[in-house]
Amino acid sequence: MNDSSKHRVRYGMVGGGEGAFIGQVHRMAAALDGELELVCGSFSRDGDNNRRTGERCSLPAKRVYADWQEMLEAEAALPADERMEMVAVVTPNHLHVEISQTALDTGFHVFCEKPVARDLAEALPLAERVAASGLRFGLAHTYLGYPLVWQAREMVRRGRLGAIRKIHVEYPQGWLGTRLESTGNRQAAWRTDPALSGASGAMGDIGTHAFGLAEFVSGHHVSELCASLSIHAEGRRLDDDGDILFRTAEGASGTLIVSQVATGEDNGLKLRIYGEHGALDWLQKDPNHLRFTPLSGPQQLFRAGIDQPGLETVALDRLRIPGGHPEGYIEAMANLYRDMARAIRSDESAAADGPGAVPGVPSLADGLRGMAFIETVLKSHSGTTKWTRFITPDASQGAQR
Amino acid sequence: MNDSSKHRVRYGMVGGGEGAFIGQVHRMAAALDGELELVCGSFSRDGDNNRRTGERCSLPAKRVYADWQEMLEAEAALPADERMEMVAVVTPNHLHVEISQTALDTGFHVFCEKPVARDLAEALPLAERVAASGLRFGLAHTYLGYPLVWQAREMVRRGRLGAIRKIHVEYPQGWLGTRLESTGNRQAAWRTDPALSGASGAMGDIGTHAFGLAEFVSGHHVSELCASLSIHAEGRRLDDDGDILFRTAEGASGTLIVSQVATGEDNGLKLRIYGEHGALDWLQKDPNHLRFTPLSGPQQLFRAGIDQPGLETVALDRLRIPGGHPEGYIEAMANLYRDMARAIRSDESAAADGPGAVPGVPSLADGLRGMAFIETVLKSHSGTTKWTRFITPDASQGAQR
Amino acid sequence: MNDSSKHRVRYGMVGGGEGAFIGQVHRMAAALDGELELVCGSFSRDGDNNRRTGERCSLPAKRVYADWQEMLEAEAALPADERMEMVAVVTPNHLHVEISQTALDTGFHVFCEKPVARDLAEALPLAERVAASGLRFGLAHTYLGYPLVWQAREMVRRGRLGAIRKIHVEYPQGWLGTRLESTGNRQAAWRTDPALSGASGAMGDIGTHAFGLAEFVSGHHVSELCASLSIHAEGRRLDDDGDILFRTAEGASGTLIVSQVATGEDNGLKLRIYGEHGALDWLQKDPNHLRFTPLSGPQQLFRAGIDQPGLETVALDRLRIPGGHPEGYIEAMANLYRDMARAIRSDESAAADGPGAVPGVPSLADGLRGMAFIETVLKSHSGTTKWTRFITPDASQGAQR
Amino acid sequence: MNDSSKHRVRYGMVGGGEGAFIGQVHRMAAALDGELELVCGSFSRDGDNNRRTGERCSLPAKRVYADWQEMLEAEAALPADERMEMVAVVTPNHLHVEISQTALDTGFHVFCEKPVARDLAEALPLAERVAASGLRFGLAHTYLGYPLVWQAREMVRRGRLGAIRKIHVEYPQGWLGTRLESTGNRQAAWRTDPALSGASGAMGDIGTHAFGLAEFVSGHHVSELCASLSIHAEGRRLDDDGDILFRTAEGASGTLIVSQVATGEDNGLKLRIYGEHGALDWLQKDPNHLRFTPLSGPQQLFRAGIDQPGLETVALDRLRIPGGHPEGYIEAMANLYRDMARAIRSDESAAADGPGAVPGVPSLADGLRGMAFIETVLKSHSGTTKWTRFITPDASQGAQR
Repeated sequence: MNDSSKHRVRYGMVGGGEGAFIGQVHRMAAALDGELELVCGSFSRDGDNNRRTGERCSLPAKRVYADWQEMLEAEAALPADERMEMVAVVTPNHLHVEISQTALDTGFHVFCEKPVARDLAEALPLAERVAASGLRFGLAHTYLGYPLVWQAREMVRRGRLGAIRKIHVEYPQGWLGTRLESTGNRQAAWRTDPALSGASGAMGDIGTHAFGLAEFVSGHHVSELCASLSIHAEGRRLDDDGDILFRTAEGASGTLIVSQVATGEDNGLKLRIYGEHGALDWLQKDPNHLRFTPLSGPQQLFRAGIDQPGLETVALDRLRIPGGHPEGYIEAMANLYRDMARAIRSDESAAADGPGAVPGVPSLADGLRGMAFIETVLKSHSGTTKWTRFITPDASQGAQR
Repeated sequence: MNDSSKHRVRYGMVGGGEGAFIGQVHRMAAALDGELELVCGSFSRDGDNNRRTGERCSLPAKRVYADWQEMLEAEAALPADERMEMVAVVTPNHLHVEISQTALDTGFHVFCEKPVARDLAEALPLAERVAASGLRFGLAHTYLGYPLVWQAREMVRRGRLGAIRKIHVEYPQGWLGTRLESTGNRQAAWRTDPALSGASGAMGDIGTHAFGLAEFVSGHHVSELCASLSIHAEGRRLDDDGDILFRTAEGASGTLIVSQVATGEDNGLKLRIYGEHGALDWLQKDPNHLRFTPLSGPQQLFRAGIDQPGLETVALDRLRIPGGHPEGYIEAMANLYRDMARAIRSDESAAADGPGAVPGVPSLADGLRGMAFIETVLKSHSGTTKWTRFITPDASQGAQR
Repeated sequence: MNDSSKHRVRYGMVGGGEGAFIGQVHRMAAALDGELELVCGSFSRDGDNNRRTGERCSLPAKRVYADWQEMLEAEAALPADERMEMVAVVTPNHLHVEISQTALDTGFHVFCEKPVARDLAEALPLAERVAASGLRFGLAHTYLGYPLVWQAREMVRRGRLGAIRKIHVEYPQGWLGTRLESTGNRQAAWRTDPALSGASGAMGDIGTHAFGLAEFVSGHHVSELCASLSIHAEGRRLDDDGDILFRTAEGASGTLIVSQVATGEDNGLKLRIYGEHGALDWLQKDPNHLRFTPLSGPQQLFRAGIDQPGLETVALDRLRIPGGHPEGYIEAMANLYRDMARAIRSDESAAADGPGAVPGVPSLADGLRGMAFIETVLKSHSGTTKWTRFITPDASQGAQR
Repeated sequence: MNDSSKHRVRYGMVGGGEGAFIGQVHRMAAALDGELELVCGSFSRDGDNNRRTGERCSLPAKRVYADWQEMLEAEAALPADERMEMVAVVTPNHLHVEISQTALDTGFHVFCEKPVARDLAEALPLAERVAASGLRFGLAHTYLGYPLVWQAREMVRRGRLGAIRKIHVEYPQGWLGTRLESTGNRQAAWRTDPALSGASGAMGDIGTHAFGLAEFVSGHHVSELCASLSIHAEGRRLDDDGDILFRTAEGASGTLIVSQVATGEDNGLKLRIYGEHGALDWLQKDPNHLRFTPLSGPQQLFRAGIDQPGLETVALDRLRIPGGHPEGYIEAMANLYRDMARAIRSDESAAADGPGAVPGVPSLADGLRGMAFIETVLKSHSGTTKWTRFITPDASQGAQR
């Protein structure tokens, strides 16, 4: 059981108590493939909530900690084959950096919810700490765990689309169509609070997903953009909607549309890429289908499934079952957890993929680029110039994985 | 047969010889409901083409004219119950104004292909001529003839969506993905030639459709926009692609995406409108379905058909057959021809709906607004300011119908 | 104008007065391509209705006849270049044979609504009359006019599917879900009346469409079947629903499902064919898309349009406009009218395609097979044996076109 | 941790070694919600495979048993708070009954793959053993774990459809389109082997799923049927395809279509139910959408998600995340595991829901009905009578849950 290639990676969780949406999703995703084991947690500042969540997770009471500082300290003091190896950070945004840094400093790998920070300035110091730690750092850009997203990216890489001309990405949601934050909804409350979320609302929450997906699949890098944000619910303090024009350094142009007031939309993340020789179209709500339309010839429908024709290895590696048995959102996140676990087991000190990078998992570099995106968007929104240059956090960092 | 309420309106056609796509569509649309009759034409400067097209239309040789000037003169000289009553102008764009003006001056109603002109300056004088003539003038914005487009508009009018927040319209095509104009394709040739098409390519050709549809259904008026156009095929002289951010005077914002290089797209005109209380979604390629999503409750699918539940009178009036028997593009244009015929028959001198306006048919005012849109787009594209005010051709003219 | 290759074929119509659904559809379909001209009619036994319909069709009063017998006689007496050449029979079923026979005997080509008769015995004598007449006879199986139905058939013919194993066809409607015939609905009244419709309701009305489509595309011939019919609305006299198992002489098996009480369905005719090497799937409500799934490789979507890749000549010949501009039900029927017109013009005495047969148009042989289908279904339904042999009207007649 | 309401239910697995599809699916489903823990297994007769699978599952070597008999014995000898509580039986069909009986006799709850046995005779004795044991017995009819399947069932129960008239269920697959069993594919080999699978192939494997789903949602019971099976791949010994007509005791009729040679289909389980007042339509490949069409009014689309409007409690109870984040097949099975765990924890001796029954989980009674279905189908197929009465295993047992 202690064979390093087989053991379940032990992880602890900060955040994710009752009433938080994403914590339980992380726990399910981590459990799915049997490659990780939740061994401790500090789920909530609310002691009752914290205790109940611990019980629900079948944790022994002693490893349910009152706060994350205590958890890091206490776990670090445990024997090596017992203490957690990785921390999953699923708190509101304002704590991501602080917890991640301390965890790394204390010797734990980190898997952190996105966005990595409230803004770029807050995030940048983390890069040094990751590099210095020699440990792994991954970001939960869940949509980048979908098998057909990898299929799409690989088809672009292989030149199936030719030079890319247009990229259109959109992420409409409708859940903040009314002023939900004033009704006691906890998630709505912190997501619309600048102190907890950062300087952007919808753009920070889901715009970064759309941006990351577009760059990941296309391999392009946004070089300038023009953003228009808005706030629709009266009294709300952060943007709940925004539209963006952009151009990429590699010569494409397109749009990025984000909304949390798009009445009736649940989670319509959609990506379309048009190249000289073909086009791709993927919709997160129907994640097991990918449409490819060549310049000539009928449209082709790629279907997810370990037995399906036409799939690339990177897609097959992220699938569990044959075609027609739908895999979904939890499975996509599980792919990220699985890759975290494998990297941690394989060679804990390796940094061949860049400081802290985990093959298959969005990296801190991606997170910084997401922060730079928000910063650029806010700058563009408040200005009167059409095009705003993309703020590059560090020329050496790209969207590599 | 001479009962003015029953007779078939006699019309002649300018343009639409062999090899032109839209002329034959007009003839089919005009024929469909049996309310008009093609009695003459000047289909092509090429005598052989002109003659062959006339024969194909079963016209007597004497009413197939060598040029449109001759046609207008000769028809004007015929007895009142024999001569044409209306001219359908389906030439390339650069001739729209001249032919329309002369036709009106000679005493004929006009149904003209869009865009009404190459630019706003060219189009403006037409407004006076229409007013002076006391005759009807309609524009072939075919998509505004679809029954469910009227359904959508009426639902907006009745407040089913509440205040509109977002409008997203897109019109991707892929047919100019390669440099088709250099292969002998006639339509590609004139559409990419500034002298024949005007100062804009894709925006003039299909951007105006997208713009008109968005304003028609929403009832909003674009007040400022930010445009980015591009040319992808090497050597092409007009934009073949463009993305736009816009805001409306009534308080909404959104995007307008247009492309003729979106590989694999055929004619994907799509409109989405999000309001405080509900949202609408319509796709031209699937014109018999309209999705309405209320703020609460399941999404609703409205289906076209004279027997279908939930349809408004304005939609039912534009349908011919029961649900499940698809009506399409030709039927949409036929609705415009039918309304032209009815207006012409009903009272030839009436102008109650505004100068030249025909109930149910896009008007010159709409056409001028389309021209102003192009002008504003080009101004925005060439400038460095984020927002460009919409150029209003005439404050008294809106998108009324 | 008298050039036989160019003139519009003159036709008269029997039936199709106000309140009848299908008559106006025929008139629109005949008008669409400008290859036929309605010159006379006997639309209704109700004099007022007849007159009003004639006026609506812009017919001179003298060519609107009180009954069809008068029409045939009077037209026969007109000069050859004035009198009608073809009769369109769009009455309830019980008059199809009598009118068709008399029309043929009087020297007119016939285009007849389906089913050709109320039963096989009534239909069989018509075969001799068609043969004796040397004239053309076509049947309005409208769905066989769809371009992608021909595409599907051609793909089967070319072996793209390999040997066919399964054929599933279904035609759910819901309009007779309540007892509409007792509410004054005229169409419901005659369609549920055995004296006017024949011995079968839903099977006769739409089952024959499903059957004909399945045999047409597959090229297979049903050799035995097992039918279960039912009546759901209390007091109704004819089947409003039925399910069938069948086997074909060529070795396939499958199901045919028909209903007019399938709540919420409008007109869901759908065909699926599975072969050893590939499968096809077509839905009438979405007629411009055809799915082809090869044994290996992604699913392919064929899209209708004169400019679309992968289409066979037989499909392109039945399309009018580029992809993404939907053609529909009227256009499908127009294809049949066009082919009737071309056959009539090309050589009026020819019978090279079989007695009366018109290339591209469902023939009397198809109609007889449809009658035999109904007969076989009723025999099976009333029996207790699993399999009932298909009743062949005449071994020499197949589903050729 | 020993709080009976909180502890993870300990289970062992028989079958599911490397190369078996379904074993790993069970393990993922059991792990997902953190309510069960795999503590032992006997995964394969092949010692290497068995060992490797155990390691992959992070099991200690001593609890990876060479055969299931040894596992049952050894586990029974462990202390109560350590030994497994439930056995998951995921072997080929021929072992289901023997293992289940022995497990029950030894004191373990059982969760068994479907079908429960090879035939009815083999399955019947199990009923007594379940009753005698006082233990829980559940069947892995995974599709009955989908949230929207429960939503559909509840809508039927509440009378939203009125009296049901038609039920159409289909389950097309294409994976046995070629003779896969002769290529070394293990699953294909045992599924087409009568000794291991039972007397039916496709009907036993997936026909029982379709049958169970139709009865579960409709609440109807098939009373007679007419079946036609076939074998398409040369040399295959069990049916790979079949079509069925059926009638229910409650007055509906319909069809059941099953195929494993439907080229290009992956796993197209689909259910349609038409009632007097409304209709439902659900497709397993798109499990998060349920269409409801009322007799009047537009079609409604119910969407899965804990925040989605219109959902019944039974659906919400089986959902984990908000709308637009797709849940899939593994989540559906996880719902069954979760309900097994809760029943086992809640009161191990209770039998209030019928002998062995587990609220929310398909029961042995359902399994017996599935066996009776296969038996009836085979009887019908080999006979010449149209209708074969449904063979009722025991009048006291229905499809209750």
